[in-house]
Amino acid sequence: MAKPLVGIVMGSDSDLKIMRNAANILAEFGIESEVIISSAHRVPEKTAQYAKTAAERGLEVIIAGAGMAAHLPGVIAALTPLPVIGVPIKSGALEGVDALYAIVQMPPGIPVATVAINGAKNAGILAAQIIGAKYPEVREKIKEYKAKMEREVEEKAAKLAELGIEGYLNNGS
Amino acid sequence: MAKPLVGIVMGSDSDLKIMRNAANILAEFGIESEVIISSAHRVPEKTAQYAKTAAERGLEVIIAGAGMAAHLPGVIAALTPLPVIGVPIKSGALEGVDALYAIVQMPPGIPVATVAINGAKNAGILAAQIIGAKYPEVREKIKEYKAKMEREVEEKAAKLAELGIEGYLNNGS
Amino acid sequence: MAKPLVGIVMGSDSDLKIMRNAANILAEFGIESEVIISSAHRVPEKTAQYAKTAAERGLEVIIAGAGMAAHLPGVIAALTPLPVIGVPIKSGALEGVDALYAIVQMPPGIPVATVAINGAKNAGILAAQIIGAKYPEVREKIKEYKAKMEREVEEKAAKLAELGIEGYLNNGS
Amino acid sequence: MAKPLVGIVMGSDSDLKIMRNAANILAEFGIESEVIISSAHRVPEKTAQYAKTAAERGLEVIIAGAGMAAHLPGVIAALTPLPVIGVPIKSGALEGVDALYAIVQMPPGIPVATVAINGAKNAGILAAQIIGAKYPEVREKIKEYKAKMEREVEEKAAKLAELGIEGYLNNGS
Amino acid sequence: MAKPLVGIVMGSDSDLKIMRNAANILAEFGIESEVIISSAHRVPEKTAQYAKTAAERGLEVIIAGAGMAAHLPGVIAALTPLPVIGVPIKSGALEGVDALYAIVQMPPGIPVATVAINGAKNAGILAAQIIGAKYPEVREKIKEYKAKMEREVEEKAAKLAELGIEGYLNNGS
Amino acid sequence: MAKPLVGIVMGSDSDLKIMRNAANILAEFGIESEVIISSAHRVPEKTAQYAKTAAERGLEVIIAGAGMAAHLPGVIAALTPLPVIGVPIKSGALEGVDALYAIVQMPPGIPVATVAINGAKNAGILAAQIIGAKYPEVREKIKEYKAKMEREVEEKAAKLAELGIEGYLNNGS
Amino acid sequence: MAKPLVGIVMGSDSDLKIMRNAANILAEFGIESEVIISSAHRVPEKTAQYAKTAAERGLEVIIAGAGMAAHLPGVIAALTPLPVIGVPIKSGALEGVDALYAIVQMPPGIPVATVAINGAKNAGILAAQIIGAKYPEVREKIKEYKAKMEREVEEKAAKLAELGIEGYLNNGS
Amino acid sequence: MAKPLVGIVMGSDSDLKIMRNAANILAEFGIESEVIISSAHRVPEKTAQYAKTAAERGLEVIIAGAGMAAHLPGVIAALTPLPVIGVPIKSGALEGVDALYAIVQMPPGIPVATVAINGAKNAGILAAQIIGAKYPEVREKIKEYKAKMEREVEEKAAKLAELGIEGYLNNGS
Repeated sequence: MAKPLVGIVMGSDSDLKIMRNAANILAEFGIESEVIISSAHRVPEKTAQYAKTAAERGLEVIIAGAGMAAHLPGVIAALTPLPVIGVPIKSGALEGVDALYAIVQMPPGIPVATVAINGAKNAGILAAQIIGAKYPEVREKIKEYKAKMEREVEEKAAKLAELGIEGYLNNGS
Repeated sequence: MAKPLVGIVMGSDSDLKIMRNAANILAEFGIESEVIISSAHRVPEKTAQYAKTAAERGLEVIIAGAGMAAHLPGVIAALTPLPVIGVPIKSGALEGVDALYAIVQMPPGIPVATVAINGAKNAGILAAQIIGAKYPEVREKIKEYKAKMEREVEEKAAKLAELGIEGYLNNGS
Repeated sequence: MAKPLVGIVMGSDSDLKIMRNAANILAEFGIESEVIISSAHRVPEKTAQYAKTAAERGLEVIIAGAGMAAHLPGVIAALTPLPVIGVPIKSGALEGVDALYAIVQMPPGIPVATVAINGAKNAGILAAQIIGAKYPEVREKIKEYKAKMEREVEEKAAKLAELGIEGYLNNGS
Repeated sequence: MAKPLVGIVMGSDSDLKIMRNAANILAEFGIESEVIISSAHRVPEKTAQYAKTAAERGLEVIIAGAGMAAHLPGVIAALTPLPVIGVPIKSGALEGVDALYAIVQMPPGIPVATVAINGAKNAGILAAQIIGAKYPEVREKIKEYKAKMEREVEEKAAKLAELGIEGYLNNGS
Repeated sequence: MAKPLVGIVMGSDSDLKIMRNAANILAEFGIESEVIISSAHRVPEKTAQYAKTAAERGLEVIIAGAGMAAHLPGVIAALTPLPVIGVPIKSGALEGVDALYAIVQMPPGIPVATVAINGAKNAGILAAQIIGAKYPEVREKIKEYKAKMEREVEEKAAKLAELGIEGYLNNGS
Repeated sequence: MAKPLVGIVMGSDSDLKIMRNAANILAEFGIESEVIISSAHRVPEKTAQYAKTAAERGLEVIIAGAGMAAHLPGVIAALTPLPVIGVPIKSGALEGVDALYAIVQMPPGIPVATVAINGAKNAGILAAQIIGAKYPEVREKIKEYKAKMEREVEEKAAKLAELGIEGYLNNGS
Repeated sequence: MAKPLVGIVMGSDSDLKIMRNAANILAEFGIESEVIISSAHRVPEKTAQYAKTAAERGLEVIIAGAGMAAHLPGVIAALTPLPVIGVPIKSGALEGVDALYAIVQMPPGIPVATVAINGAKNAGILAAQIIGAKYPEVREKIKEYKAKMEREVEEKAAKLAELGIEGYLNNGS
Repeated sequence: MAKPLVGIVMGSDSDLKIMRNAANILAEFGIESEVIISSAHRVPEKTAQYAKTAAERGLEVIIAGAGMAAHLPGVIAALTPLPVIGVPIKSGALEGVDALYAIVQMPPGIPVATVAINGAKNAGILAAQIIGAKYPEVREKIKEYKAKMEREVEEKAAKLAELGIEGYLNNGS
């Protein structure tokens, strides 16, 4: 898997701090990704070009994050047969509700797989789950990841049982 | 003004009943318009082509209406130096709030002049006001239109003063 | 593809009229699906069992639809490594906003790929896009579907150009 | 009452600072509680096990707090005949509105007794009121608690009458 | 259990069609209830009297339903040590969101156990769960009710498996 | 009180069916009112003139109702020292939330006494309460009105006690 | 006017920083007020007593401020023939929207004159406008206050014209 | 273009920090503007005078910004045939949603071209686009501005490709 399977696109470099969570979790799953700044509004033709060539360049999934009137995921979804995951970014006065509605409420024919506001990490996991259908080793890693989450919750539960509420809170949690 | 000055674009023919109000009021002002169905998601390249050639074809304003995750006005605005007026269409479970947010909350650099949900008539008047800067006869018609609105309110006020509330309501208002 | 690749689960038979749109579009793409009623709240253990065995039974994607405090998609996502698509169903006083928030705002670790309120058709298309990564013939069908959508919009555009607004509206659109 | 009568469950240790208010007020009423971290999404089977055995282990009420797409209270309520109190936790971009909707809008058959966003203290009082039906000494303590609240408001009212607004505000209120 | 254990109070007789669902489900559980019209705003003193005497008259739970600026549940909760369940009624332009906020967002000290908008049936079930702590036969009935719900879902699931989607929908579901 | 003490102004004759409730309740209290159609946007100068002369013409209170971007109450309040009561009218896609916000959220210096969406009857009662400060006979009528409301609720309560829920509902309530 | 004409009531001393703005502006108009802490939920009987005796004690208007499920203004309005002004206080996760809805959406029969969230200053001005009907010297002061506001805006406008934007912003505005 | 073509009006000097973005971008386009403080509520007659004389004084567009119950843009639009652009300002507890609704939801006949909350920069660009219909050199500048935005995004994209995510974020972005 040396070649990127996931394209992570964002509308502005101010989204990078959130969107890198997608790249990081994909790296944890051993999935190569490419990270791109490409605005639906400021470089519409570059964005269109990126979307139209994504499948033939070997990408399997595109993750697109944008804030406010967030058109980027939908605009990309219009131009590719690949599944597109949309990440509404919290920004501006409406704090991401605008982006959520502008991404999730796609009209019939052009879906965008939407995750939570600022949910870039989940976007990465979802991309891995999609890729896991084809690559059994990725599906195994997702199972391991779920098992790890379980262990972490159980460790915290055990720590809370041992220390009590105040002890836990004073213990740097 | 035989050539269209205003392009009225909508994402779906289900928007036509609302959007024709823009065409009708423009016709009242003597302004030629063209009416187009062109979805940002279903025919992205045709839409892009329309937006990119609008100015050179002689259009002065574009009015774009769309519902739900309403990307059409913003996608057009990205590709033309013309002013673009956005009409959020009421449809789906969120009844147009999604379309309002997806149109009005455009990021810096690419404005869309947004009117009320289903406000296609106002979109037409706004287009006329924009055109009125260059065509003094249009501005005169807007003044006349405002005067006519005043007279209509005054006639209703007089009728109410004459008939009283119940008389007015029983009188087919 | 005689064996179902997609499980379509819903919390109540009142969701069936919406959710069948997912089954229908999958059938159009030649993808077998199974349709199940299984409530996260009323039959929690049956639901858990369904989720836990889905991957080994050969499903590639699960689509789950639910209204109000819509826990079904998230509860299933917790118990399977497969990608889970959530469809918020419009019902009750909040008309689907509750279901949208209860599905899309999943915490880190357990994504649900959320589509629009009542967006079961898009859930089916998204499932096909996911399956398309592994099955090239499905991806081809998605490309054809997009091309068909384009042609339909273009036919409507041509009809509108021919008939004009009033002609179009009177012509049974 | 040496044995816990109330189980306080939360989805994440980040909820502990809020949820301890439930434990504290229960302690004030002399009611033993147990505090548990157990996520509906990360450890679904442990959570199910906890809910299914709660009544036979002698719990009378369960308080469950969670943020975002808050499924924990409903998931527990599905698996126990005990009354379940849900505490929506303020977190993420929607600041607890998502959690409120995901908890309070339960479908017919599986109620969750919902309190205010971050209202863990009230969850504790409500648990005590429920327990008070069976344990008269707890009901007495609730009456005393209400009387104490009255006295505190009256003391503040008296202080304000004495000091005036500015005096009161400067006096460390 | 000849004497009422649950008081069902509503602000207006227009709420009766919703609130009777609470009385009906309680009757199914063999729990006697009394149904009262008593507005927090129109008969404040009668309401206060009702709340203050409820516990000594032998009630164990009060269910209060109200629409718009729904003060009734909170006003009652202020004057009784009993647990109070609040049912936001859908009415007026805000369709119950106002009532939900006015009931669930109670300040610290005076909880109201809030259920879904128009969720009177769940209010009745919750009241039974509360009563079940003291009356083992009620708790048994709740377990039976949950088992019945499971069977009903399973029957529907079986019917769907047998008839398929279209068959099911045409079969009077 | 032959001369009108209350001016009832509305932006459009479509508001008349709601706003007449203010006139009717004022008539019940024996308070003369005048009813005017005068839009802040369509006849701004007539509206300004009305507001500026209201006090000297002997009005004591102005009630103004408007929908959507409801500026009428605020525009009048800017030009009169009289108390102005605002009635948000339910209309358009936002169903009165827009009008509520546009009326109640007045900036410091220019209050508008806002009532519920479509709350014209309450606007009339509030106007009577304001007038009651100066006219003791009006205050007496308000007390009688409150007493009458109490009796009506008590009669309904008695009827419900007599007939039971189903009897009451079948009895033409 | 040595005796208080306006009662300013709030549910909690945490509201005092906002509510004093009402007292201060009333003092500016030469109107005596009394400031009271009295919670609808924590001291319901004291609050009822206050409301019932307000008119006979000579108050002309009551201003009541409360946050979250803000019942105080409505509870007082139920028990007095005086006009009651409600101030929604911004607090908790919903930041005052809950309080706004819980105050403004009063059912027919019991109005509350609602001002903006945290709009205590406007509540004071509105109280003065109400009192101005009876006391001509208060109405004069309101006119002067409006004239002063005009002068202040004009001074700022002049300063901006003189200094330009950057000069104005650097000049300590 | 020595004479101002755009009037920038705001309701309060607290809006100046946002509204200057309109003036600055217009200056970048070589368009003269005038900046005015003039409240619809505090100096209604001055505001009316400004609006009524704007066209004859040679203005082509008016930009009006206001917060909360933002009436300024609509009040101006009522009194001029010029296109009016409204900027909702984020302020108060509702953070600009009130201003957005109070500006965009204008009734038929009087449009306001609304931009995003705090979107003063886009208001300036939109004004330039409107002016560009008449002044070809302005339209050229808009095209150049769009080209510059493209270059900036491309430079950021190149920098990200070169430095990678962490390098980019550490590099002062």
